[in-house]
Amino acid sequence: MGIRVAVAGASGYAGGELLRLIAGHPELDLVAATAHSQAGTPVAAVHPQLAGLDLVLGVTDAETLADADLVFLALPHGQSAALAAQLPAGVKIVDLGADFRLHDAGAWGRYYGGTHAGTWTYGLPELPGHRAAIAASGRVANTGCYAATIALALAPLIAAGAADPADVVVVASSGTSGAGRSAKVNLLASEVMGDLSPYKVGAHQHVPEIKQATGATSLSMIPVLAPMPRGILATVTAKPLGDADPRAVLQAAYADEPFVHVLPAGTWPHTAATAGSNSCHLQATLDVDSGRIVVVSALDNLGKGAAGQAVQCANLMLGLPETAGLTVFGVAP
Amino acid sequence: MGIRVAVAGASGYAGGELLRLIAGHPELDLVAATAHSQAGTPVAAVHPQLAGLDLVLGVTDAETLADADLVFLALPHGQSAALAAQLPAGVKIVDLGADFRLHDAGAWGRYYGGTHAGTWTYGLPELPGHRAAIAASGRVANTGCYAATIALALAPLIAAGAADPADVVVVASSGTSGAGRSAKVNLLASEVMGDLSPYKVGAHQHVPEIKQATGATSLSMIPVLAPMPRGILATVTAKPLGDADPRAVLQAAYADEPFVHVLPAGTWPHTAATAGSNSCHLQATLDVDSGRIVVVSALDNLGKGAAGQAVQCANLMLGLPETAGLTVFGVAP
Amino acid sequence: MGIRVAVAGASGYAGGELLRLIAGHPELDLVAATAHSQAGTPVAAVHPQLAGLDLVLGVTDAETLADADLVFLALPHGQSAALAAQLPAGVKIVDLGADFRLHDAGAWGRYYGGTHAGTWTYGLPELPGHRAAIAASGRVANTGCYAATIALALAPLIAAGAADPADVVVVASSGTSGAGRSAKVNLLASEVMGDLSPYKVGAHQHVPEIKQATGATSLSMIPVLAPMPRGILATVTAKPLGDADPRAVLQAAYADEPFVHVLPAGTWPHTAATAGSNSCHLQATLDVDSGRIVVVSALDNLGKGAAGQAVQCANLMLGLPETAGLTVFGVAP
Amino acid sequence: MGIRVAVAGASGYAGGELLRLIAGHPELDLVAATAHSQAGTPVAAVHPQLAGLDLVLGVTDAETLADADLVFLALPHGQSAALAAQLPAGVKIVDLGADFRLHDAGAWGRYYGGTHAGTWTYGLPELPGHRAAIAASGRVANTGCYAATIALALAPLIAAGAADPADVVVVASSGTSGAGRSAKVNLLASEVMGDLSPYKVGAHQHVPEIKQATGATSLSMIPVLAPMPRGILATVTAKPLGDADPRAVLQAAYADEPFVHVLPAGTWPHTAATAGSNSCHLQATLDVDSGRIVVVSALDNLGKGAAGQAVQCANLMLGLPETAGLTVFGVAP
Repeated sequence: MGIRVAVAGASGYAGGELLRLIAGHPELDLVAATAHSQAGTPVAAVHPQLAGLDLVLGVTDAETLADADLVFLALPHGQSAALAAQLPAGVKIVDLGADFRLHDAGAWGRYYGGTHAGTWTYGLPELPGHRAAIAASGRVANTGCYAATIALALAPLIAAGAADPADVVVVASSGTSGAGRSAKVNLLASEVMGDLSPYKVGAHQHVPEIKQATGATSLSMIPVLAPMPRGILATVTAKPLGDADPRAVLQAAYADEPFVHVLPAGTWPHTAATAGSNSCHLQATLDVDSGRIVVVSALDNLGKGAAGQAVQCANLMLGLPETAGLTVFGVAP
Repeated sequence: MGIRVAVAGASGYAGGELLRLIAGHPELDLVAATAHSQAGTPVAAVHPQLAGLDLVLGVTDAETLADADLVFLALPHGQSAALAAQLPAGVKIVDLGADFRLHDAGAWGRYYGGTHAGTWTYGLPELPGHRAAIAASGRVANTGCYAATIALALAPLIAAGAADPADVVVVASSGTSGAGRSAKVNLLASEVMGDLSPYKVGAHQHVPEIKQATGATSLSMIPVLAPMPRGILATVTAKPLGDADPRAVLQAAYADEPFVHVLPAGTWPHTAATAGSNSCHLQATLDVDSGRIVVVSALDNLGKGAAGQAVQCANLMLGLPETAGLTVFGVAP
Repeated sequence: MGIRVAVAGASGYAGGELLRLIAGHPELDLVAATAHSQAGTPVAAVHPQLAGLDLVLGVTDAETLADADLVFLALPHGQSAALAAQLPAGVKIVDLGADFRLHDAGAWGRYYGGTHAGTWTYGLPELPGHRAAIAASGRVANTGCYAATIALALAPLIAAGAADPADVVVVASSGTSGAGRSAKVNLLASEVMGDLSPYKVGAHQHVPEIKQATGATSLSMIPVLAPMPRGILATVTAKPLGDADPRAVLQAAYADEPFVHVLPAGTWPHTAATAGSNSCHLQATLDVDSGRIVVVSALDNLGKGAAGQAVQCANLMLGLPETAGLTVFGVAP
Repeated sequence: MGIRVAVAGASGYAGGELLRLIAGHPELDLVAATAHSQAGTPVAAVHPQLAGLDLVLGVTDAETLADADLVFLALPHGQSAALAAQLPAGVKIVDLGADFRLHDAGAWGRYYGGTHAGTWTYGLPELPGHRAAIAASGRVANTGCYAATIALALAPLIAAGAADPADVVVVASSGTSGAGRSAKVNLLASEVMGDLSPYKVGAHQHVPEIKQATGATSLSMIPVLAPMPRGILATVTAKPLGDADPRAVLQAAYADEPFVHVLPAGTWPHTAATAGSNSCHLQATLDVDSGRIVVVSALDNLGKGAAGQAVQCANLMLGLPETAGLTVFGVAP
């Protein structure tokens, strides 16, 4: 008999990936998966890749979820706070939404609007000090997918004084599952295939989270929707401070990390290599012409960018091996 | 200390998938992975999705492989026989190539040319009698990816006398990894994306294997290259004999199978739901206009169509649980 | 001053392609483009590929359209009849919907439901006798995209007595634009990329149109959604009658056609080669194992399968050169 | 009888697009299309989208080409100089390769190596003064696809003193046809689909051309291979100088240009909207957090990035209307 977990918001893409990871996890038992409009539907009708999983989606409410030891919330942004407030204090929670990520209530208001729900422990174990904090927390705010990709690339460089936090330029391209499973014309396959499409240029709501997680003080972030189902590729540039080798700084920061891989010099990360895994691939160099630091970071937005990261946090919170139920290797090609 | 396995031909797509599955297998230890031109290269340089796997490709020869308890051969067609002959009799072998699949030496000559190497136990455990035969064999010829897809759809219907073996029409579309990792212009992304491209129409070399595995006596097989990295979708039609419900026949045949799923009535298989898994999804109906049986079958050509199937066979040959190291659920979206 | 044309239903994919073709047509002037919910929106906001076209979508009603010499109706199935009835008799109409295609009111009722609107001249100029009939008509029912692809492949063989009309098996895969521009989860890029997905297996509503256009008396039609924005690939098999070479029959039928190309022997059609064009590519052979005739047909579902075909019909109806404003060559890669 | 043109290097992707454009051009007659290893092959066997074009590829030599009024060279970089030297002075030439683009022989040596062939008129008509220079030239060096995308976005801002040329950061993603038609494993569909892959990070050979064309003095350029056949999306950021509205600067620069479209405020360019056209779409804003200018530029790398641009230059050189044979509107979806 394993540890009892539940997934609220199980009909979306992150929810489906959580169900897949939990099904393969040696210590976790799925006791409930809930949804809104899809409640009452068999899981496999909503997620055909889970054919053979004999479970019906329940209703997303506190009663259905309270019986679990740990609940994953994979709800639309803004819906976590109300539900979390209704769950018993003894039920641990990992929230995959943005509601509890920001320290700065003002930034919340400017970018998301509405009332700031509060701040939970930030769920990126590889940041200094975060691993222990997560393990000691009953409530964890999982990173956003863009923030995870960019923070792993940049935070150690700023922390080491090797990169100027005041002039960071990021272009980050995401696969379509990052936009969620809502039926919108701009997300139709006909529109997306063969297309690269920037959006929210100049004012993306993840900017405050990225600044908070990286230490950047000025950040230009340009998100692009890319014609692939999964994956984020972030190109991060900043002016160097001092003469540290940026790749060496990253290597030192992640030498003992199971899921963050600084690739051999000259080898650049690409998204497909991380698909289905909980790994992040990194590489860094100095641009020959401009002298800027260039870091490229790749991960699976549903893996290390969402569900995998959430399971990693849950493992820490539950006292399990941090890597339990997670894979280092991607599914490619 | 687990069972020692090796992979010959580890630089290709099936080889890479074998390495991934072995790395996640609870009972198998990888002792060697070999290649031809890539010998001496780190595995992760050839398969970036395996970043973190600390292994260098060896040379494909008997000396490198003989130390294993079981060897997977993922070589180009026609190269298995010579290598197999040099391996000690006590080393079990699963050959992913076509060399030892056919009973009919004449069919080999007509479709492949050259000398017929012989016939090994055919590695499709779900066919009647095959599971026990595989478990008792030291040499197994893994199914081809098309044959696995089509045989799982059709063999029970012909065996049950429900489908006429004399007028079978199949159209089967494959993702590009099925064409291998060789640098050919027609496999370039520029040529493939946005394109459906039939090939070897009217005379595909897998026809004899498919007839042998299904019991069909006349088969029209049209293969199509599809713009996706993985997956095979086969549409199989045949005239009905008697009045059995084809879906019920498939359900009866696969009721106890862990990897073959007859979907709920009205739900049709699609390839993405099987990606990364060892599952095959099936559905059948009678066409309203023509009355023909239509079966649709989907699987991952590198999973149940190649490396997953090979591991399933190896599990049987080694006395392990048949499902060890394999996943039922796909990675989607 | 050219001939005045209008497009009703200009916000969809076929409507957008009509606008593109009309803009490049030497004899046609676009006087109105209309829509429902998008009325009042600039065309380029709905169709970004038409940036620079200075036109606002009007309301789809008879008043807006009556001023044109010819109106293209690119409306959802079932909406053409009411609008057509309100247009003056002198306004020529090409309807891209299904409403007026079928001769058999019973088949309409069985497959579409509701009242049969009637029957207009069928808009496939390459069928025997159709060119003259179209030129003489003021009302033309444009072919469906599947029907065009399949009829061009099969009709000459049945007409020549070379193929048995009583046992035709078709598998036809379509790009996603064939499913229209409606926001549905199953059409999201996340669901479609990397996926082949059959639908309406065994009972597709285009079967009666295909039978009518080809002469087939029994037809198994399996449609598949493919991960590409445009293109249809149909594989058509039938039993041969007599010993005619099926390729030679097709060559004879299309020797003088500008848009139908029987490829050199051994070269098989693929969809990307027809993208953006009004061409259909064909090839035929006899299957070595089964002896069945196999014909493969490829075209652009928005080109020869919809908007291109409609312009070709309009050219005939207006006494213009049949090829005016249309291209033979595809946009590839 | 039109103006006689020839295409050297007609077997590649840019060559194929040139043939397509010339076939649709009202004033140009194609008198020769040449290749190396494919000489002697029918054009339609090499470019299936040109089925129906009755022409055999000739040998790439001066004798075959000298009879034309204008020759397009679509050769691998480094091969244009020798051939150009053998052509009569009266034969006009548009070179799609890099050989004659750079003013700075030192930069050529550093990035390309070998001897600098010389400098021809740079073929980007929309840059100040370039249109007249092109019209007066017999030898024109067509822009590179990255340089065209980036120069159209940035050159007017630097020229107007609105952007700091000393800290430009560009991330530019290209479809695969930009990598050419050579059979390389990293360009296989299996590797590319579902993948974003940066390359030559920190030291791309197009940097000197981009600096020359834009006026940038320090440039960080990160190229990314994207899973689509065509299109380039460049995100260009620079520090603002003064308080000019960057969008207004671009609007003023391109008010009379037929092929460069500054989109309505708030609408961002995406690549698919330009496919098959000679258009470039632009948008600009100031980043809310960093204050940097962000310009996004999209075009078809084979259109305005290569063959379309070359035809536009040829039109100018031949005294034809600049837009002859070119399309403003893209083929989408």
